[in-house]
Amino acid sequence: MENPTAAMLVIGDEILSGRTRDANMHHLANRLSEHGINLYEVRIVPDNLAMIASAVNEIRQNSVHVFTSGGIGPTHDDITADAVAAAFKVKISVREDARVLIADRCAQYGLELNEARLRMARIPEGAKLILNEVSAAPGFTLENVNVMAGVPSIFKSMLEWLLERIPRGIELAKSTVEIASQEGELAANLGLIAESYPKLQIGSYPFRRNGRFGVNIVIRGQNKKLVEQAEIEVRQTFPDVVVD
Amino acid sequence: MENPTAAMLVIGDEILSGRTRDANMHHLANRLSEHGINLYEVRIVPDNLAMIASAVNEIRQNSVHVFTSGGIGPTHDDITADAVAAAFKVKISVREDARVLIADRCAQYGLELNEARLRMARIPEGAKLILNEVSAAPGFTLENVNVMAGVPSIFKSMLEWLLERIPRGIELAKSTVEIASQEGELAANLGLIAESYPKLQIGSYPFRRNGRFGVNIVIRGQNKKLVEQAEIEVRQTFPDVVVD
Repeated sequence: MENPTAAMLVIGDEILSGRTRDANMHHLANRLSEHGINLYEVRIVPDNLAMIASAVNEIRQNSVHVFTSGGIGPTHDDITADAVAAAFKVKISVREDARVLIADRCAQYGLELNEARLRMARIPEGAKLILNEVSAAPGFTLENVNVMAGVPSIFKSMLEWLLERIPRGIELAKSTVEIASQEGELAANLGLIAESYPKLQIGSYPFRRNGRFGVNIVIRGQNKKLVEQAEIEVRQTFPDVVVD
Repeated sequence: MENPTAAMLVIGDEILSGRTRDANMHHLANRLSEHGINLYEVRIVPDNLAMIASAVNEIRQNSVHVFTSGGIGPTHDDITADAVAAAFKVKISVREDARVLIADRCAQYGLELNEARLRMARIPEGAKLILNEVSAAPGFTLENVNVMAGVPSIFKSMLEWLLERIPRGIELAKSTVEIASQEGELAANLGLIAESYPKLQIGSYPFRRNGRFGVNIVIRGQNKKLVEQAEIEVRQTFPDVVVD
């Protein structure tokens, strides 16, 4: 059985200009791995309605789940909700349940429920809300597209809320073997091992630490016993250079 | 005059599984900003030949420059060169100038020039080499697609070599104003300012520091005077909450 697939869309000029280093993609990748969902594509696009809408429409066709990050705040450059509505060709307007969430938060902190804050209650027709326990303004799910905030603490909180509601796949078994050698020395034999385990993903990740080269061999797959068997084979193939 | 556009393709299962946090995208974004090149899309795809080839073909149509990262080492999971050759429908084979670079390095360090290392001399027909001053195995440029290594130190080195050969655009003038308030308070007036400067990108980036909310207003554009004028307008619009 294949695990469900997912794609992510990160929205924001600030990531593409280098001003901000995105943190949500790496967090999502880890949480989906743990949840048994196979993240197979990420796209990063600017704050541009047409580009967001077209990316949403491309990736939602091929994925069980789509997760977006960024562009749902109250300012003029927050256009993700409109872009998603445009992608699905549905209307968008202030929705009562979202308005109440924001109004309650404003009342609690003595803030004015002005037009900008009301903008965050605009939800595309047919969507379900994603709760925001950090700052109230909700995300939303439209069909298989989950629209979340870009601020990392809010993104994380929304994602946990969502994952409690998304069925788990099978978390992949994983094993890492560190080798004190260079990829060029291992590649031939490692390729043979990879060929003999077509159901596993066997990756080779070179690194350099304290001036010395090394390689991490990472073995992943749904079948734990098969992963363990491949790990033994890797260790037996490179006995002199396996670390520990 | 519009600056030249660029797109990036990051290749690697390890990024999508959350094992590794990509560093090359953020580095490229910063260096392209400084070089006056407009990075407008990034995609991350797994070590899958068909997906790499199709992503290359989609993004190279719309960009002046494409930069890829990852998958050009000697192991079985390094398939980027083959995927790029497939995308362009050209042959790929060991090329003499690339072979010499790798052979020289092997001779220097007393390493065997085995089949795996020779794999790194396989270059698609019609490509130009990108020099690798760190570990010799070259990247390559095919038309507008620049194929580079994923190891960050090698990626950086290849990128600097490339940028010396890519004409500069106009580095955008940039100004940041920190505001000790919340986006919901600023949004209406900030939106009016943004509307009155259609040639500038005016972004609003909320943050939380020591338990207090704040916003960075970032103004970017080719015309430095216009950026300065917009900055003055932002400062005059929010006199009580501008920081410094």
